[in-house]
Amino acid sequence: MAKRIGKRTIRFDKPPAILASAAIVGEKEGQGPLGTFFDVVSQDSHFGQKSWELAESEMQKKTIALAAEKAGVQLSGLDCILAGDLLNQCVGSSMASVEAHVPFLGLYGACSTMAQGMAVGAALIDGGAVRKAAAAASSHFCSAERQYRFPLAYGGQRPPTAQWTATASGAAVLAESGSKVQITHAVFGEMVDMGVKDANNMGSAMAPSACDTLEHLFEDTGTKPTDYDRILTGDLANVGADLLVTLLRDDGIDITPVYSDCGSMLYGEDQDAHAGGSGCGCSAAVICGHILREMEEGRLKKVIFAGTGALMSPTSIQQGQSIAGICHAVVIERK
Amino acid sequence: MAKRIGKRTIRFDKPPAILASAAIVGEKEGQGPLGTFFDVVSQDSHFGQKSWELAESEMQKKTIALAAEKAGVQLSGLDCILAGDLLNQCVGSSMASVEAHVPFLGLYGACSTMAQGMAVGAALIDGGAVRKAAAAASSHFCSAERQYRFPLAYGGQRPPTAQWTATASGAAVLAESGSKVQITHAVFGEMVDMGVKDANNMGSAMAPSACDTLEHLFEDTGTKPTDYDRILTGDLANVGADLLVTLLRDDGIDITPVYSDCGSMLYGEDQDAHAGGSGCGCSAAVICGHILREMEEGRLKKVIFAGTGALMSPTSIQQGQSIAGICHAVVIERK
Repeated sequence: MAKRIGKRTIRFDKPPAILASAAIVGEKEGQGPLGTFFDVVSQDSHFGQKSWELAESEMQKKTIALAAEKAGVQLSGLDCILAGDLLNQCVGSSMASVEAHVPFLGLYGACSTMAQGMAVGAALIDGGAVRKAAAAASSHFCSAERQYRFPLAYGGQRPPTAQWTATASGAAVLAESGSKVQITHAVFGEMVDMGVKDANNMGSAMAPSACDTLEHLFEDTGTKPTDYDRILTGDLANVGADLLVTLLRDDGIDITPVYSDCGSMLYGEDQDAHAGGSGCGCSAAVICGHILREMEEGRLKKVIFAGTGALMSPTSIQQGQSIAGICHAVVIERK
Repeated sequence: MAKRIGKRTIRFDKPPAILASAAIVGEKEGQGPLGTFFDVVSQDSHFGQKSWELAESEMQKKTIALAAEKAGVQLSGLDCILAGDLLNQCVGSSMASVEAHVPFLGLYGACSTMAQGMAVGAALIDGGAVRKAAAAASSHFCSAERQYRFPLAYGGQRPPTAQWTATASGAAVLAESGSKVQITHAVFGEMVDMGVKDANNMGSAMAPSACDTLEHLFEDTGTKPTDYDRILTGDLANVGADLLVTLLRDDGIDITPVYSDCGSMLYGEDQDAHAGGSGCGCSAAVICGHILREMEEGRLKKVIFAGTGALMSPTSIQQGQSIAGICHAVVIERK
């Protein structure tokens, strides 16, 4: 059973285990500073498919299959797949898992989707509804550019606050037991809307929600930032991460000794990604390819993964609506 | 704790209670045979807003607020809202709940979203992760027409197999206890893709998944159709419902004595809705406005609500992809 502690935090009495994880990324992501951590760096941005949308679903499908293989679990041994992406009606994820013949729960949390899937998946396992589950998320630069902004050939300019949608996918297999790496706590995020209307500045739209979730997590668990080896948000990128540090510092909390943002980590400074990476696949790949590997190998013991999403659509932006941020978090510990 | 029984069914040992529910619909839905059951029939399809998308979110927001009011629960007393809709990036739901200041889990299950929210919400409550939650879903004819098909002014023709997207929203407040009406079982659906590529025949695309989920539910629980007072799918509409009856009959199961489809129930034959209603709000409003009221008042004791979704997007259809169906189910009993 899960227990509610404090105002918002869920503590798992039998912390669900992360049996294995996998990450598959595109060429640009493979050339970044984390390139060597990813399981597969595809030189073919089409992933052998005839459209960008099918490319994204193929990437996510392969990532889930690889995570299951590493976990020693058949796909048919999963009680459900929890997955989402940025494509309209989340078709990247539904097309990815339609052939798995496994119960499917579609999620939409924008770039917080991986954290949402891990949080909900862990709660379902801890509560006995599900024994083994895969959480997955993906994004593809080309499918996202087409849908949100312009045809690639248009060559539209991007301001420095803009983020680069990662071609990346991450998946993690969760189970009742079987690994020292476990999800011990979760916080479901509240939306926070501070009135940001600029879709090229999503870091600023999301930072207040990350601040809200992290402050509740610290308070509910009676912990401070340095009780964790790493605190990772994803994906605030450089602009949003700076803002989060400032917001927390205003409230007397200094996360800088242990803080990184997945969007800031994915690309090198010479990679022309502006403020940094974004897209559901960015934090999914950084967590599943890099961070969970560090935990499996014992170099990290206690981590917060706080996934941040910008809840908007091209239509809502065109209609002048502001962008609500949301941040779902999990605490992952190596026991 | 939840227990897995059989291959796919989740049985809740402490069945979560449905404290209250509410449904708000548009004018056309109010003129249908169920019109008197809905809490509010709005004569203003704009719901006082300046765009169809804002109209939909306003309708969902009011529905959640009304369900909470009927349950005697402050919005701030909810541990989370689980909600989804058909709009790109699910903005109908995020805009509806941004001011609630309550943790938010965005779901995407197309027309199965209400059932998915009730199933996941019940599992989270039963497992202790959440104490009180609202599950909600909505759709709006005008926002859906613009997004999926044509500007309304175009006046495009529709074939007889097409369904009419309901302007409707339903919400239910779930809690650990407090009502005789309880969710006793849930089944998370698997996607079933039989190759249907016609977005104007979604009933046929979804019926096989409803067949799959219902057959597992009967087998896992050792029950037969007549053990239930009503079995409701939503929204297969007339074409899909006929197909479901045939598919189940081929496997020796006759649901006809107790079977209805929410999409077939919502509109009268004279209302020009073609095969019947659809949209996340259709089954949400029929269940939350009509069926749960019948249960509260004791006229129905044991019901299956099997929400069906067609997992596709305009892009996937344009690219020639087939439509996967999915069906999430809950068993609701009056103890």
